[in-house]
Amino acid sequence: MVTNTTTKDHKLALLIIDMINDLEFESGDQLLKYALPAAHAIKKMKEKVKAEGFPVIYINDNYGQWQSDFRHLVRHCIDGDSRGKALAELLKPDEDDYFVLKPQFSGFFGTPLNILLEHLGVDTLILTGVAGNMCVQFTANDAYMYHYKLYIPSDCIASADKKENDLAIETMRQVNKADVRPSTDFSLKHF
Amino acid sequence: MVTNTTTKDHKLALLIIDMINDLEFESGDQLLKYALPAAHAIKKMKEKVKAEGFPVIYINDNYGQWQSDFRHLVRHCIDGDSRGKALAELLKPDEDDYFVLKPQFSGFFGTPLNILLEHLGVDTLILTGVAGNMCVQFTANDAYMYHYKLYIPSDCIASADKKENDLAIETMRQVNKADVRPSTDFSLKHF
Amino acid sequence: MVTNTTTKDHKLALLIIDMINDLEFESGDQLLKYALPAAHAIKKMKEKVKAEGFPVIYINDNYGQWQSDFRHLVRHCIDGDSRGKALAELLKPDEDDYFVLKPQFSGFFGTPLNILLEHLGVDTLILTGVAGNMCVQFTANDAYMYHYKLYIPSDCIASADKKENDLAIETMRQVNKADVRPSTDFSLKHF
Amino acid sequence: MVTNTTTKDHKLALLIIDMINDLEFESGDQLLKYALPAAHAIKKMKEKVKAEGFPVIYINDNYGQWQSDFRHLVRHCIDGDSRGKALAELLKPDEDDYFVLKPQFSGFFGTPLNILLEHLGVDTLILTGVAGNMCVQFTANDAYMYHYKLYIPSDCIASADKKENDLAIETMRQVNKADVRPSTDFSLKHF
Repeated sequence: MVTNTTTKDHKLALLIIDMINDLEFESGDQLLKYALPAAHAIKKMKEKVKAEGFPVIYINDNYGQWQSDFRHLVRHCIDGDSRGKALAELLKPDEDDYFVLKPQFSGFFGTPLNILLEHLGVDTLILTGVAGNMCVQFTANDAYMYHYKLYIPSDCIASADKKENDLAIETMRQVNKADVRPSTDFSLKHF
Repeated sequence: MVTNTTTKDHKLALLIIDMINDLEFESGDQLLKYALPAAHAIKKMKEKVKAEGFPVIYINDNYGQWQSDFRHLVRHCIDGDSRGKALAELLKPDEDDYFVLKPQFSGFFGTPLNILLEHLGVDTLILTGVAGNMCVQFTANDAYMYHYKLYIPSDCIASADKKENDLAIETMRQVNKADVRPSTDFSLKHF
Repeated sequence: MVTNTTTKDHKLALLIIDMINDLEFESGDQLLKYALPAAHAIKKMKEKVKAEGFPVIYINDNYGQWQSDFRHLVRHCIDGDSRGKALAELLKPDEDDYFVLKPQFSGFFGTPLNILLEHLGVDTLILTGVAGNMCVQFTANDAYMYHYKLYIPSDCIASADKKENDLAIETMRQVNKADVRPSTDFSLKHF
Repeated sequence: MVTNTTTKDHKLALLIIDMINDLEFESGDQLLKYALPAAHAIKKMKEKVKAEGFPVIYINDNYGQWQSDFRHLVRHCIDGDSRGKALAELLKPDEDDYFVLKPQFSGFFGTPLNILLEHLGVDTLILTGVAGNMCVQFTANDAYMYHYKLYIPSDCIASADKKENDLAIETMRQVNKADVRPSTDFSLKHF
């Protein structure tokens, strides 16, 4: 059962969606092209967020591997020499990072994510990761319905298709009322 | 995303609730007394179930340790020389066993359990574990509302208090329409 | 979409579970015997709660009648001269009372109840109604997992069987940490 | 509790989203322009679907009116002489139509919709209504994660902005694998 630790009231959390990813699927190549610069931007964002003591949560597809741990997936991507190796190395989770395995596109669907966020006292989410028009947007939609404020830095989001990525970001700005300014403009003073 | 593997239509699944447990809490001692014989019965049940190719799912409290893996928890219980070491040794998960970490009493609350069960094509659950009047009963209630048929072998359920355990089993028989015959009566022909 | 009206921060809500009920089922007769005095106690509780401006929420089974409104159900129970007529007359909903139709035992399962409670700013629930060992207990379990504080006045709860009702109340006291003192002891100063 | 009536295995259901709507909000005027021809197309679709005995489900925003019934909302739109009167008259629910009130954009979020669809034995949804880039798309996303097959006839969907509507339809075609051919091409033989 959820214990009431001193982790309450973090207010802000950084979500890193599907970046621990072997990219071994069609269009994985194409996605990598855009995901790599996003990974660099997310890495910097992660440093800023952790410097202030805010939590970082990896949201990851379980790829139908219901018997696997997240740490196992990290090793698979790095040691397995997969297409996504560079991403996993850049964004290798720390011991104190959180993770949530999701069976579907949205990070909230069939997962404890909302319970974890309530446990951490979070009301604002920084969404980053891939793919912008799929898992990120589905997660943004649920986040919006749960009343989280959204910051979705445009340079921390990637999709296999640049135009679809831009459309997804524009939709999240309009429909989900997300702040989509690039992470280079980011300052914790916004929050 | 859920891949449609050949794991469909297993029909039956064995759920082992909170038996991977260091029991390092008040009344853990008392619970161990009843959980140990239950662990022996569950071990036999697990063998029968796996011999027929049905899936085994460990449902486990995350103990507020949102950064930990299930395999880590198993090692903690066994190598850490905890009060629950004997239970974890008897019921050590196999590589092909499934697991679901739950943040609350019910195995369905804030977890992908229902999605996993649909993925596996399961319609009947064998519920086993601890504590009978808490996590087992809460899980049984949700399972009932999701329309699963329930087999809750009375000798595979334990609570810190024998009388409360008996009451929980009787309630699950009446309210949740569970078959509660002991596992010694169990035959896959029932299913 | 949820509008942010001035209804926030009510803190306390009274839930009346399945008392709008034609009782036209086996053991309905038996249930009525205990539900009638409970209805009188709930009526008084409702008056006290409304006098302080707290919301009252009727939680009601939809009886598989997915095409019916709640107001229709109220009329059915009263005008239809059903076995449950006296209950519905005593506890006839006011225009400003809330209602939630549930497809299953728990008031939270497949309903907007938790969203409504968050909308109202509620953190403490007074649970009343029938049947104590079924819909009330299932609702209490979910409420507990959602971290609501529970007051379940023993004289406002009824089941077809007196002994089972007493057991359910005792279980909710122990497992769900509910205050179960009778409503005659109730004072809003507790909250 | 869900009763197992003879309504099982309908396979197909028509969902009509937010068309019972007073449109009394900014851009309601603009939305009406596109929603009116959509209403005519939905009306024809409804006739075809009902002729084959498939269920029709109205999914409707509760507009924060947690104390109101759906039938009340219908009367409000028609008798209240609202901007949305023509829509409500065209698509006035029949006695045997189902309805689900939703507190948020998605018809699945905090509602019994999925339970109702399972109860009806539905595996394919025809999504129609407004707004295409908001409630329809959010509902389509959840439907996709629940593994429903989707038919979203492009002429039965409207948004306040034509271009955004087209983008939403194209996204649902690509991401949610929806069939988006116009309803004029519709034949029950597809299913």
